[in-house]
Amino acid sequence: MSVVMDADALRRFLAAEFPQSLQLGFEITRVDAQGVGLVLRTGDHHLRPGGTIMGPTLMTLADTATYLVILSRVGPVALAVTSSLEMHFLRKPPPGTLYVDARLLKLGKSLAVAVVDIHAEGAGDNPVAHATVTYAIPSKR
Amino acid sequence: MSVVMDADALRRFLAAEFPQSLQLGFEITRVDAQGVGLVLRTGDHHLRPGGTIMGPTLMTLADTATYLVILSRVGPVALAVTSSLEMHFLRKPPPGTLYVDARLLKLGKSLAVAVVDIHAEGAGDNPVAHATVTYAIPSKR
Amino acid sequence: MSVVMDADALRRFLAAEFPQSLQLGFEITRVDAQGVGLVLRTGDHHLRPGGTIMGPTLMTLADTATYLVILSRVGPVALAVTSSLEMHFLRKPPPGTLYVDARLLKLGKSLAVAVVDIHAEGAGDNPVAHATVTYAIPSKR
Amino acid sequence: MSVVMDADALRRFLAAEFPQSLQLGFEITRVDAQGVGLVLRTGDHHLRPGGTIMGPTLMTLADTATYLVILSRVGPVALAVTSSLEMHFLRKPPPGTLYVDARLLKLGKSLAVAVVDIHAEGAGDNPVAHATVTYAIPSKR
Repeated sequence: MSVVMDADALRRFLAAEFPQSLQLGFEITRVDAQGVGLVLRTGDHHLRPGGTIMGPTLMTLADTATYLVILSRVGPVALAVTSSLEMHFLRKPPPGTLYVDARLLKLGKSLAVAVVDIHAEGAGDNPVAHATVTYAIPSKR
Repeated sequence: MSVVMDADALRRFLAAEFPQSLQLGFEITRVDAQGVGLVLRTGDHHLRPGGTIMGPTLMTLADTATYLVILSRVGPVALAVTSSLEMHFLRKPPPGTLYVDARLLKLGKSLAVAVVDIHAEGAGDNPVAHATVTYAIPSKR
Repeated sequence: MSVVMDADALRRFLAAEFPQSLQLGFEITRVDAQGVGLVLRTGDHHLRPGGTIMGPTLMTLADTATYLVILSRVGPVALAVTSSLEMHFLRKPPPGTLYVDARLLKLGKSLAVAVVDIHAEGAGDNPVAHATVTYAIPSKR
Repeated sequence: MSVVMDADALRRFLAAEFPQSLQLGFEITRVDAQGVGLVLRTGDHHLRPGGTIMGPTLMTLADTATYLVILSRVGPVALAVTSSLEMHFLRKPPPGTLYVDARLLKLGKSLAVAVVDIHAEGAGDNPVAHATVTYAIPSKR
């Protein structure tokens, strides 16, 4: 599972093929043997009642980070699609910076499985959310 | 589990307390003993490469429908928060109208569990996505 | 998704290929267009502290019911394997009879997804457990 | 989240309150700040067609390891019950020794969430299964 697309290549791919995904405003900060890291500085449009970050923002980050960690290993396969996403919301994430780490558990011929931990600035050592995300990979790759 | 907030009451509550959620553009079409129904007419900003509807759009619909089915039974509890969301993406949903059905499996003192099926216009009788969503309900209710 | 193995054929297949699965003691009560139904009369060895039925018993039932509903549609494919299983335990099931209903949401070339509801005698109209189970199907089928 | 029950205390508790759980045959090999470790030497009764370890065996291990990691932090609360269990089966585990690691992500007043990785002897560096398990903790604790 060596890296075949680095952060710059992933960013260019998203800009060309999937520009909507960049509207979320994250940065790709790390692509290495361990996985992929993203950072998001949240704004008011990411909040829900009570002043915490919306669940859909966290789910979108987990989904995107998984997509990127797969692309970083298999190359530009735009049509890889999410097969399942399970997210546990562990703590209310305060507004501020989110740190997203995606790690591949399996990269099979037709299925990839990753775990994603999201930490929040000022929320301690434990993650605010944990996800397991499965992607189906088209067979012609 | 009788209905204590109808579609109009839910809509006013979201507009007052959580206006961002309405940006997605869905309508509340049904609130009854079986659960809650939403409809979304999708646009280009809901699509991903390949022309199908983005996973985050489907997850946001499932999360929102669960929030609404809980509110419809327990009344306006803005701070109920998603505890976990698991979504299975079963078929690529074509652009067009999505039909969302949320049904409560459990409404406990501190936890509620709902299942959500999303059907797409022109995608046959089977759902395009199936979710199980858990909410934590604040104890002072 | 018409039925190609009925209850008798499924029972003979399990007895020949997977006899351990029958140690649980369930019966196959229904195989039809809607899915597969199992019944289990629980005994002391199915209980945990507090006198309710053990989680692993419920998970085994959900896993087995999904295996059977897939076999009932695709024929005897012994090597189909569970890819993921998510179970929500909704109510403490009292000792007595359990009713298991498995329904296929998707039967794709390489992946099948089913939902399983388990009801318990004397526990009301709502299920005591709800599962979503995914199987990988070998490609040579 | 300091340790209040060590491996011996956990073993005695299971033997007294939940002897069936020990029939699986695992050993508790580690209880520390990182979590709990179990080891199981599998036998023929743990296998399914194809000679790999049965899903229910892996799920039971994940459920039990989560129960033990919670008890090790909160003390002997026999009635803590599984609220949800999601397991991803990543590789076919060959017969032999299984290594189970459970780590708490959250220990709240009423809910605990743990992740469990199961590695198999001879199956490489990646886990053969990954689970996220949620327990409800009775409020009188």
